[in-house]
Amino acid sequence: MASHSQDELVLLTIEQAARLLRKKEISPVELVEASLARIERWNPALNVFLTVVAEPARRQARAAERELRRGKSKGPLHGIPISLKDNFWTRGIRTTAGSKILGDFVPQADGEVAARLAAAGAILLGKTNMHEFAYGITSENPHYGPVHNPWLRDRISGGSSGGAAVAVATGMSFASVGTDTGGSIRVPSALCGVVGLKPTYGMVSLFGVVPLSASFDHAGPIARSVTDACIMFEAIAEKYPKDQKPPDYRKLRQNRPRRIRLGWPANFFFERLDSEVRRLVEAAAKTLATSTGARVVELPLPRTADSVDDGTNLIVAEANHYHESQGYYPARAAEYGEDVRGHLEWGHQLSAVRYLQGIEKRRALEDEFAAAFERVDVIVAPTSPIPAPSIGTNDVRVAGARETTVRAELLRMTRPANLTGFPAISVPCGFTRQGLPVGLQLIGPRWGEAKLLSLALAYEEVTEWHRSHPQLA
Amino acid sequence: MASHSQDELVLLTIEQAARLLRKKEISPVELVEASLARIERWNPALNVFLTVVAEPARRQARAAERELRRGKSKGPLHGIPISLKDNFWTRGIRTTAGSKILGDFVPQADGEVAARLAAAGAILLGKTNMHEFAYGITSENPHYGPVHNPWLRDRISGGSSGGAAVAVATGMSFASVGTDTGGSIRVPSALCGVVGLKPTYGMVSLFGVVPLSASFDHAGPIARSVTDACIMFEAIAEKYPKDQKPPDYRKLRQNRPRRIRLGWPANFFFERLDSEVRRLVEAAAKTLATSTGARVVELPLPRTADSVDDGTNLIVAEANHYHESQGYYPARAAEYGEDVRGHLEWGHQLSAVRYLQGIEKRRALEDEFAAAFERVDVIVAPTSPIPAPSIGTNDVRVAGARETTVRAELLRMTRPANLTGFPAISVPCGFTRQGLPVGLQLIGPRWGEAKLLSLALAYEEVTEWHRSHPQLA
Repeated sequence: MASHSQDELVLLTIEQAARLLRKKEISPVELVEASLARIERWNPALNVFLTVVAEPARRQARAAERELRRGKSKGPLHGIPISLKDNFWTRGIRTTAGSKILGDFVPQADGEVAARLAAAGAILLGKTNMHEFAYGITSENPHYGPVHNPWLRDRISGGSSGGAAVAVATGMSFASVGTDTGGSIRVPSALCGVVGLKPTYGMVSLFGVVPLSASFDHAGPIARSVTDACIMFEAIAEKYPKDQKPPDYRKLRQNRPRRIRLGWPANFFFERLDSEVRRLVEAAAKTLATSTGARVVELPLPRTADSVDDGTNLIVAEANHYHESQGYYPARAAEYGEDVRGHLEWGHQLSAVRYLQGIEKRRALEDEFAAAFERVDVIVAPTSPIPAPSIGTNDVRVAGARETTVRAELLRMTRPANLTGFPAISVPCGFTRQGLPVGLQLIGPRWGEAKLLSLALAYEEVTEWHRSHPQLA
Repeated sequence: MASHSQDELVLLTIEQAARLLRKKEISPVELVEASLARIERWNPALNVFLTVVAEPARRQARAAERELRRGKSKGPLHGIPISLKDNFWTRGIRTTAGSKILGDFVPQADGEVAARLAAAGAILLGKTNMHEFAYGITSENPHYGPVHNPWLRDRISGGSSGGAAVAVATGMSFASVGTDTGGSIRVPSALCGVVGLKPTYGMVSLFGVVPLSASFDHAGPIARSVTDACIMFEAIAEKYPKDQKPPDYRKLRQNRPRRIRLGWPANFFFERLDSEVRRLVEAAAKTLATSTGARVVELPLPRTADSVDDGTNLIVAEANHYHESQGYYPARAAEYGEDVRGHLEWGHQLSAVRYLQGIEKRRALEDEFAAAFERVDVIVAPTSPIPAPSIGTNDVRVAGARETTVRAELLRMTRPANLTGFPAISVPCGFTRQGLPVGLQLIGPRWGEAKLLSLALAYEEVTEWHRSHPQLA
């Protein structure tokens, strides 16, 4: 059985590991031990896990081993070690949301995502570090320290699901689940070279998720391949409306995308980009078009920039509403890190009129994207306009434009899909000269996950980026 | 033909006038002339009309006379002189919304209400005075002067549809259409002794209405009888959902309400009332119950008071959103009257978090009322906790409680139906010792207009209040 080294085991895809488990060439116990060894070895340097539940994971691994030996498989996740971002409620396991305020919070029940993954046989290794309360995009956590990017350790991982992305990129877990309110699944996935799917709004239950901004929060998988992301998504997804086709990881490879119309945004998404990001994303779009025979359709999105700016006020207001109604802010303002406190101070001042303007702009954005998806099947875009900046950097200058904040830049490409609720995926599409990963973002129409994933897979199949892993040494 | 004096003609109900028109005992020309004479005689004292369109009305009357003579009736409104509150767009007729800012605004098209009434054969006499921009409940207009209450002229008419209510009460028009965002149809109807119906939200098109707060604005009829209100409503109402019964004025009398459960609010509505109002409304409820054989069900509404207060912030925020997005406020702040400017100043400060709290509270209120309508058919309440106060009064003390504002008191009983969108009607239910009218409010479930009107009619049939008219001398 032990023909694979631990370092080989932890970097298998779920698809590969599930095949070996089925053939009984490996066992869940080996997978868990290899993952735990990986965590023990590298977590101190990368600061990925806030909580590791080694003994429960081992127990579950033994149980899974017995079940699989008896031929009782619960599906592709049975016996697979995973992690969860620390804002998912887990029964009996501390759930901090990266905050000091919830530093001792131990839920009495699993949230929906944890419960569904457990039912699918996945084995929880622990809870991953994140931006405080998911309210930021860098995962520089003031209470638990920053998550380090495994490709260049002085760089941020991106956030807010930074720990989840690094856990997956480094083989500390086979997959993870993050949340994405403005880009928090896709951005760390892009910055760490893994696959991140933000599903259609509502397709994954938020029951048992510490909220950021409830009407923009999305839960979704982070994985090392498109198929793995699909497997994870299927395990946590709600039922699709009857007239919509749900994705099926077993058919993903057969259902080749055909007659695809690839939307190439004439505005917003390609307007101000790091030159290496531009080059890689443009090349990726070309590869995708060529390999699938897709027709590229130039797509005007004239209202997007304006709408996103104003729509973001809605996210800010909802965040304040949560923190204020919980009695956290302003009562416990001193217990927040500086940046989240700053956001809450600003959100507290935000006027109702600007909120209503945001509602209007959000509607305009929805209309613009809905009209776009009458003309195209998917929109290509960068996931982030820049590769991972250094930890501690506040400001950045992109493509010679005036200086802006790292926060604003990292969120710029991903927010439209949060404001509209449309699904979007980030897949690795190359590396900068410094060796930092870059992500290609595909945005699809509501309930378009099946198409999005099959296109992402078509791209993945003709590229090698997803097979590169950070060298940990 | 001329067996009726002008003073008799103008105080006929639409139902009566339509019958006489059909029998050709009177003509639309007579009705219009009598109404115009009434306006000419009493408008200077009561300040009801901002614009009178005498010549177009006369032309239309002659046309209607010809059509009716040829037996071409468009229905019960054919040839009936009506008025419209001055926030309804009327083609070629100045539409001020009671403001200076729109003082010269002449719409190029009719709004939906004006168009439908014209199609039904009603004859528009003119546009009635109102609270500036409908943003107030007294109709003390700073630009056009206050509307006087015809029962005691130093009293307010109530607002914001004050002119409309007085026009109907005094026989200056047979009916009118007002708008109601917090009580603006029902309150002046109660204070002036006429019938006012605020329909279910969305049942009358707001196309071509100068908005106050779009998601709380309702257009609806003001009339001298329940049947007349029904006739007017049918002319302006949208289609009902298929499973809902629309009202039909011809069947109103036959469809006797049976097995009615009358909701008697244990909270909120009877908590702080002028003693004469309490006595009259309680007596009215008893009369209604006795005459219809209804069962009275005591109804706890524990969350209403709290929800209404916070929900009102939504109305304020939407008003600011309109005035700010139009560029009226703050740019033209000096052109507003003091009170509306004050509301806008306060609304400008309102925070997004309070808006979101309001959304929550509105939902709680909807839930409370929806649950109530599982148990009862209709809720009885006063329309206003006080009779009409004197013009120029800002503060009032009700039932020995601490002093509050006239504005807050006048709006207190009517706002729940605006926040929930449930229909409500005010019918005359008596007079104070000083001779001021008092209104009984009936609130029904969504699309419950048919039931509401048939109950209101059942009450009207056993009372005489609607036959009293203010003595103009």
